Amino acid sequence: MPRSINRDTQLCMSLSGRPGNFGTRFQNFLYEALDLNFVYKAFTTKDLPAAIAGIRALGIRGCAVSMPFKEACIPLVDEIDASAQAIASINTIVNDDGLLRAYNTDYIAIRKLIERYRISPDTRVVLRGSGGMAKAVACAFRDAGFMSGYVVARNEEAGRRLADICGYAWAADASGLNAELLVNVTPIGMEGGAEADTLAFSREEVEAARMVFDVVALPVLTPLVRLAQLLGKPVITGAEVIVLQAVEQFVLYTGVRPDDALIKRAAAQALA
Amino acid sequence: MPRSINRDTQLCMSLSGRPGNFGTRFQNFLYEALDLNFVYKAFTTKDLPAAIAGIRALGIRGCAVSMPFKEACIPLVDEIDASAQAIASINTIVNDDGLLRAYNTDYIAIRKLIERYRISPDTRVVLRGSGGMAKAVACAFRDAGFMSGYVVARNEEAGRRLADICGYAWAADASGLNAELLVNVTPIGMEGGAEADTLAFSREEVEAARMVFDVVALPVLTPLVRLAQLLGKPVITGAEVIVLQAVEQFVLYTGVRPDDALIKRAAAQALA
Repeated sequence: MPRSINRDTQLCMSLSGRPGNFGTRFQNFLYEALDLNFVYKAFTTKDLPAAIAGIRALGIRGCAVSMPFKEACIPLVDEIDASAQAIASINTIVNDDGLLRAYNTDYIAIRKLIERYRISPDTRVVLRGSGGMAKAVACAFRDAGFMSGYVVARNEEAGRRLADICGYAWAADASGLNAELLVNVTPIGMEGGAEADTLAFSREEVEAARMVFDVVALPVLTPLVRLAQLLGKPVITGAEVIVLQAVEQFVLYTGVRPDDALIKRAAAQALA
Repeated sequence: MPRSINRDTQLCMSLSGRPGNFGTRFQNFLYEALDLNFVYKAFTTKDLPAAIAGIRALGIRGCAVSMPFKEACIPLVDEIDASAQAIASINTIVNDDGLLRAYNTDYIAIRKLIERYRISPDTRVVLRGSGGMAKAVACAFRDAGFMSGYVVARNEEAGRRLADICGYAWAADASGLNAELLVNVTPIGMEGGAEADTLAFSREEVEAARMVFDVVALPVLTPLVRLAQLLGKPVITGAEVIVLQAVEQFVLYTGVRPDDALIKRAAAQALA
């Protein structure tokens, strides 16, 4: 049962163009399970500077930042953590008595997953995508010591720009790149999207790869993930990213790190 | 059991110098009882303009405004309802898609109580106090047709100013005024205050009066209320004011008017 709200309850929130329910469910579940006097609610806004000023003025403890606000927030905060500085994109604001410090827990989560799966830095990575999340993922690989790789993007300009940031090469598609690790950071395979039933990489590319990483979290079992599992390849799913980055936000807001069993329960409930 | 928060949940809030728990308990109890997708939380701020701008930018549905913000909010909203215009003081903001409309539900509550208790406008009223709430109460009596009365205040300047607004007379104390209705709108008798054990009017004044109205809500049974009850006088308590004004806020935020039985339960729980 959720604990009741009182004058000491701290509010955490999210700002995004189209609020979802994942963060709200995940964070509130953990607050209740750990009996922390916090409550979480999703918002959108048409006036980002006023929204951020409101967070400061109302003493709102923390804010998750999603599309399309991740870069526009940067001049509105007071300090930028290395995780956000690395990619000039923020997804988390922590408010300490009016001082707003920005982080990027997507970047932190990708770094942790690279470590957790012991992916060797000499693995040949082919990453598809060129948006904000692709930048977080590509920079995490770069900073984890992956010296060479490919950025595959239909949009050549955006693809080359991201490739340049990381010292990687751009390619229009992944065929013939001999990828060992395929990473999808496009909306291909995303529920409700125009390409929900499309594979982000071809069957041949998946067959030739050693491992597949799909950052799409909804559904967890995208066409790409299902194919990779069918072919017996190790897979990292977008659910792992979204949960891990949310855990890092939780820790930043509350100072408490939940154990793995509890995280699993929170994730199952939030992704249901 | 509180319903769970999701992306459609609407936030209502309060802004005050020292947040209490009454509003939070009262509003959240009614949201749950009526299964409305709302949640309520108390805030304070050191930057009122940014806080109000944040309410607008975040689409926060409503905000109760308490000391010391009731007058400073006026230039920050878009429209002023007659209830707030009457006294140049607001205690409620309603946000309709970014348009902020301000009300004073204290004034509305006092008007309703004058009606409910069928107090005749020719009753000789002696009101003690000269602060923001005293203004709301005095103007409510004035607008209900009470043509003459006294404002009693130690602070002569503030007392005379309020008396002038209402066309009443000022007096340094209530003795010899032959009050029929005694109204206390000072902090005298308030829990935790410097004069918690003091009577706002003398025993003789209470004995001579027909009715007593104490706007202090915490405790409900102030020394003045206890004395008046002991003497068999009809009494209006501050609890009635605080509950009625909160009901009016609830109606403004949600569009739903709870029935009397439910209001009683919400009040009992919030004042406990």
